[in-house]
Amino acid sequence: MAQVVRTGRLRRAPEGFLDAEAIVAVQSGRRDFLRRAFAFAAAAATTQAAAADGEAAILELPEHSKALGQPVAARGYGLPSQFEKNLQRRESPGLTRVSGASVSFTPLQGLFGIITPSGLHFERHHQGWWDIDPSRHRLMVMGLVREPRVYTMDDLMRLPAVSRMHFIECGANTGMEWGNVAVPTVQYTHGMLACCEYTGVLLSTLLEHCGFDRARGKYVLAEGADGSGLTRTIAIERALDDVMVAWAMNGEMLRPENGYPLRLVAPGLQGVSWVKWLRRIKVGDEPFGTKDEVLHYVDLMPDGTLRQYTSIQECKSVITSPSGGQFLLDKGYYNVTGLAWSGRGRVKRVDVSFDGGRNWRTATIEQPVLPKCLVRFNIGWAWDGRPAILQSRAIDQTGYVQPKINQLREVRGTRSIYHNNAIQSWKVDGSGEVSNVQVY
Amino acid sequence: MAQVVRTGRLRRAPEGFLDAEAIVAVQSGRRDFLRRAFAFAAAAATTQAAAADGEAAILELPEHSKALGQPVAARGYGLPSQFEKNLQRRESPGLTRVSGASVSFTPLQGLFGIITPSGLHFERHHQGWWDIDPSRHRLMVMGLVREPRVYTMDDLMRLPAVSRMHFIECGANTGMEWGNVAVPTVQYTHGMLACCEYTGVLLSTLLEHCGFDRARGKYVLAEGADGSGLTRTIAIERALDDVMVAWAMNGEMLRPENGYPLRLVAPGLQGVSWVKWLRRIKVGDEPFGTKDEVLHYVDLMPDGTLRQYTSIQECKSVITSPSGGQFLLDKGYYNVTGLAWSGRGRVKRVDVSFDGGRNWRTATIEQPVLPKCLVRFNIGWAWDGRPAILQSRAIDQTGYVQPKINQLREVRGTRSIYHNNAIQSWKVDGSGEVSNVQVY
Repeated sequence: MAQVVRTGRLRRAPEGFLDAEAIVAVQSGRRDFLRRAFAFAAAAATTQAAAADGEAAILELPEHSKALGQPVAARGYGLPSQFEKNLQRRESPGLTRVSGASVSFTPLQGLFGIITPSGLHFERHHQGWWDIDPSRHRLMVMGLVREPRVYTMDDLMRLPAVSRMHFIECGANTGMEWGNVAVPTVQYTHGMLACCEYTGVLLSTLLEHCGFDRARGKYVLAEGADGSGLTRTIAIERALDDVMVAWAMNGEMLRPENGYPLRLVAPGLQGVSWVKWLRRIKVGDEPFGTKDEVLHYVDLMPDGTLRQYTSIQECKSVITSPSGGQFLLDKGYYNVTGLAWSGRGRVKRVDVSFDGGRNWRTATIEQPVLPKCLVRFNIGWAWDGRPAILQSRAIDQTGYVQPKINQLREVRGTRSIYHNNAIQSWKVDGSGEVSNVQVY
Repeated sequence: MAQVVRTGRLRRAPEGFLDAEAIVAVQSGRRDFLRRAFAFAAAAATTQAAAADGEAAILELPEHSKALGQPVAARGYGLPSQFEKNLQRRESPGLTRVSGASVSFTPLQGLFGIITPSGLHFERHHQGWWDIDPSRHRLMVMGLVREPRVYTMDDLMRLPAVSRMHFIECGANTGMEWGNVAVPTVQYTHGMLACCEYTGVLLSTLLEHCGFDRARGKYVLAEGADGSGLTRTIAIERALDDVMVAWAMNGEMLRPENGYPLRLVAPGLQGVSWVKWLRRIKVGDEPFGTKDEVLHYVDLMPDGTLRQYTSIQECKSVITSPSGGQFLLDKGYYNVTGLAWSGRGRVKRVDVSFDGGRNWRTATIEQPVLPKCLVRFNIGWAWDGRPAILQSRAIDQTGYVQPKINQLREVRGTRSIYHNNAIQSWKVDGSGEVSNVQVY
């Protein structure tokens, strides 16, 4: 039973809440435990009517069912339960030499639905984050425009606004899997992923406001105000389509780690294009070829060449529960759940296999299904106690099917870092333990 | 200029970020202020290419554009910017005698999109809130069922799950407006409103799991584990439709103030039916008529009778910016924005008037448009500097049109508290100050 009572740092959903004693009791069939639990719940039944129903006698009434609790607005801005404090974004130790230029990962294994809580949104900084005073922050729009402008936050927030839900995924997400490094949990394999509701002004509105040169303007450069001066080129078709200059995320102003007070939202493009602490938009007639585009976020091909500007995040999915580091405590029914997304539009279908890709069943996709936005899928599974390999495979509106890792390797080799959208495999062994495996 | 430079406790969106000096400078036409702003932003332009474009010389480079910032996961669970700390849920002083049995309101005036940040979600407790240990929490399903069951959290989280976005509105929201009390801000008029993505198991799944009596079971009772033992009757048709037993909100486990670890989600019904800290579901053959249903959340009619079980939140909308307590600093274009919702399904259309209801224009509704869920609307308005009265009017999929306050009063009188879904009017005076007025 050792694997049952050990406690990890990660929530072992869906078995996260029973304590070791209760788990052992359930597994060993000690139903007196459940009777005690019943009595605990039945403490509710204090009325005559309830007694007439033959409900159990009151054995204990918890303090929270008797006393006056905490007042409203007790803690100002609300926070999660004390029992959830292990669910955090986490840095991968040693991934970079400086934590200011590093990554922390979203704990996907413990999340639900499609909205990523802002407090658990992954981070990727190139020179650390700042909490910039919005009254001093400015956005300049310049280059091939008739009238360059400098906007205050207040100027921007008067303009026509849109609110949209989109996923953001770092181009390096799932990068370790190119080789044979199978990192243990979905937080580390897929946790450079988030999905939020953003509010801002369309970049097309700003470009029209400044009278951009429709004949010569083919690209825009977005530049951040952080020390790295991060810069990315975006093709004008994208810029005029659905790219936003956003100030809000999940209903409130952006968080400092996510670019407060202003960031670019570039739906479908890799996260590095979503420039944080956005201070400048420049219109040009060719790609800008900045340091961040020439040296980083390029695909190293088997022949040694570098493929540049492959920035659309292709269709992808992952089972988040059960996933690596979790385990199943007993046989029987489980709700298997995960996320799917595509940088090219809507997800059309998600299939799930429980036998390493031989047979597939179609999962239920929850509403809403929006373009360039996560979808949550669910599918029922009765575990028979034998080893199993769980996979999910997404198909988007273009008909593109999420590939296997060996299909990607045939084209790209094993030395790549970016843009791995392969099918993820989780192995459930006979003890119920779940681990990351590669299936070819 | 006194009204321009005063600072309130509430964000004066969309003019929230310029400081007093900057506002005065802009208003008095001192363009040197904007030139300095331009130079500030232009500090980005350090490359030869930029210089060739004739960009402004560098006057100052802020610290955040030079130094290494904060590391990833610097604060564990992330929090809003220090510049946003005035945006909080707030208790209405003196509304109740005990803050443990009171209300704190969502600051709608400073929010965006439809998702309410969990840390700003309104609260209404009857005996305070608790942070209940999920490993000890149980849900009992009993009454007219073949097999009563007691579920642990782990039991529940293995069952088929759904994720859905829904609004929640307290039945007493906008209650003060029944009389002639015009409370000053949208936080206090409409702030017992929120919208989240919930994950849980459908109540229908649990009822079927327990074999409820389809012939005799006409109502369910939901009971909370807090000291008030809050109880509400729900008709079986509703219970079998879209009611959920939810453990997650906005991607993570429920917050303690919102019922952690388990609450009822009763889409379209008033908030009191969304029983928090849910511990018991009982199936019965008639309404339960508990203390919370007989004495509270009933409509006092003009003839002195009480109307009971009017729990569906009818179609309603409100402009959140500009709204009471904010002000417009100068003439010109503004994005006017707000929220609309209906307890009977989808919002079909939102119209906005700028002249107290004489003329109406149809606003843009942002995606997604989901049943029993908030929608965000936006509409452009060029303010000419003269007094104006702003109103919004929502129409839902049933064709129901949000009424005027006098239409409601004709039926319900002026002594009601609950279920006021009247059109809200905000007056903009010649100085740009916005206040709450009633228009008949």
